[in-house]
Amino acid sequence: MAGVVESREWYLAAYAPEGVPTSDHLKLRTVTLSPDVDSIPDHHLIVQNIFISVDPYQRTLMSGLEDGLYFSQTKLNEVVSASTIARVIGSKDSSYRVGDIILNPFGPIAEYCVIPSALYLRKVDPASELPLQEYLSSLGLPGFAAWVGIEVLGDPKPGSNVFVSAAAGGVGMFAGQLAKLKGCRVIGSTGSDEKVKLIKEEFGYDDAFNYKTETDLDAALSKYFPNGIDIYFDNVGGEMLEAVLNHVNKHARIPVCGMISQYKKIWTERQGVRNLLNMVGKEVRMEGFLVGSHLNRFGDFAKEMESYIKEGKISSKLKIYHGIESYLESLGSLFTSSNFGKVIIEVKK
Amino acid sequence: MAGVVESREWYLAAYAPEGVPTSDHLKLRTVTLSPDVDSIPDHHLIVQNIFISVDPYQRTLMSGLEDGLYFSQTKLNEVVSASTIARVIGSKDSSYRVGDIILNPFGPIAEYCVIPSALYLRKVDPASELPLQEYLSSLGLPGFAAWVGIEVLGDPKPGSNVFVSAAAGGVGMFAGQLAKLKGCRVIGSTGSDEKVKLIKEEFGYDDAFNYKTETDLDAALSKYFPNGIDIYFDNVGGEMLEAVLNHVNKHARIPVCGMISQYKKIWTERQGVRNLLNMVGKEVRMEGFLVGSHLNRFGDFAKEMESYIKEGKISSKLKIYHGIESYLESLGSLFTSSNFGKVIIEVKK
Repeated sequence: MAGVVESREWYLAAYAPEGVPTSDHLKLRTVTLSPDVDSIPDHHLIVQNIFISVDPYQRTLMSGLEDGLYFSQTKLNEVVSASTIARVIGSKDSSYRVGDIILNPFGPIAEYCVIPSALYLRKVDPASELPLQEYLSSLGLPGFAAWVGIEVLGDPKPGSNVFVSAAAGGVGMFAGQLAKLKGCRVIGSTGSDEKVKLIKEEFGYDDAFNYKTETDLDAALSKYFPNGIDIYFDNVGGEMLEAVLNHVNKHARIPVCGMISQYKKIWTERQGVRNLLNMVGKEVRMEGFLVGSHLNRFGDFAKEMESYIKEGKISSKLKIYHGIESYLESLGSLFTSSNFGKVIIEVKK
Repeated sequence: MAGVVESREWYLAAYAPEGVPTSDHLKLRTVTLSPDVDSIPDHHLIVQNIFISVDPYQRTLMSGLEDGLYFSQTKLNEVVSASTIARVIGSKDSSYRVGDIILNPFGPIAEYCVIPSALYLRKVDPASELPLQEYLSSLGLPGFAAWVGIEVLGDPKPGSNVFVSAAAGGVGMFAGQLAKLKGCRVIGSTGSDEKVKLIKEEFGYDDAFNYKTETDLDAALSKYFPNGIDIYFDNVGGEMLEAVLNHVNKHARIPVCGMISQYKKIWTERQGVRNLLNMVGKEVRMEGFLVGSHLNRFGDFAKEMESYIKEGKISSKLKIYHGIESYLESLGSLFTSSNFGKVIIEVKK
């Protein structure tokens, strides 16, 4: 190959300590790169992104606040990152050939890019009959996060009372379905009546409620959990976590996957959780987790989840945005309860 | 035996939702009971208390607030409870003989009482050369709580950075010493300069600070933990827990034994912990515990602790109050940083 290709990419123009990032913070620019494989270092690949995953944690890398969150902040002027599904168009690694489809767990939000052929890249089996985008959803990190929280940390038993917040979201939808498959009684919370319906009808939760209309969370939890909560899969933190801590059973487990209610705020201005003392009396275990620390279990997960998906035992809902230019809008949608299921950008058909 | 014995006992006259209980809430009364063993039911004992353990959790049973704490509230007019060391003076259980010394983990704060010879009573080996009161301290539930938090939940490694709050208290003094014996670097916090000295000189902590003078907890933790905190043995909750969560290392463990800063307050009026989100980024495990759930490990603990005590590897500090009439004062002392080590009442010489 010769010449150059044009590639659009999203970069961080300014930090956004508060609120949802806007076009002041995230900007699209066009760069050129050489498609000539001789132009890249050894153990690198040139790839074209096909699908890009849009996840709440990405927002935490744009605050400019080094407050113990997740990963380091994205540097100003640098391209922001996400999990992507990409096609190899040039390879300086004998394990990858042109045309291979790969899952890149943490790469540039760009149309084309050069990436190291590093540890956690994963090739998609060309014999797989599953849609490619599922490798960013049920079979990717969102599905894996749900599996780690429920199966590794949650210790679900038949009849356990399980509560999942953000239950129609990219991770929550799988958390509840996995708990159901273990014989648990599962209730979800979400931010619209339409999503309540989805959770019950499509994801098979025993029940669900809209936290925006049932604003007395304590009363809601009393109603939906007359026998208390054994496992709370926390995606939201804040007030909901506080309410849950007044309804936990002895030895309850709280795997904390994220706290989306907390991402937009500087921590000293957040409303604190006032009833942690209940964790002593009820002997509660609360555990934050990142999927990266559990990758040794990814194989077990993939095998289990693939068979669930093939047997139709797990339903996966995707919200697809089109074109790389949709990143800003799709990221914002995560914080306004406006989307269903997993948010993904289709960069190229 | 015939006739009657007079026995003084502390009963709950009124609930104390706020503040430290006073003589309005806790009152001493004299009752009579028959020392005749024929007067008691089968599988019961008549005992004379020798030592009574005074512990912070006792205060939580007097608030009248059923808010998920520990055990059920003491009923009004009922005798309040504590761990005691007692002598059997009458027995309707063939496993116990008059003169046996027993540890009663949860019995009436009284000079004499009739108790069921139930599950968790434990006989003190008459061949033991250790002072009896140690069975309420290093060899009793405080020592066991420290052991569970550090060894069962804390996963200490040589070089781990360990922080213990209320480090001169009945549990904290052992938590830090056990961590030191595992090769950890241990720092404690406490409420007076005198106790800082004690912690360093008698308990062998690497360092300690007075949270009443080093009021910028964040700065204090930066100073004492330049490499972050791996294990926080929490006895106090509240502001200190929040400060710790800004200094935790990846995969830190926070066994929560108690939250003494929180006991006096109605939960909705407490200052919340605002930075729980750090638990996700740092993958922190926080776990409340009660010793009652770990009694299957008591034997392992007792063996280990007894050898430490006999070899002089663990120092135990007692603050002895004299006479059952001292209960109110001794309980109050727990909430004013005025005592050192484990608080015990010697009922009878």
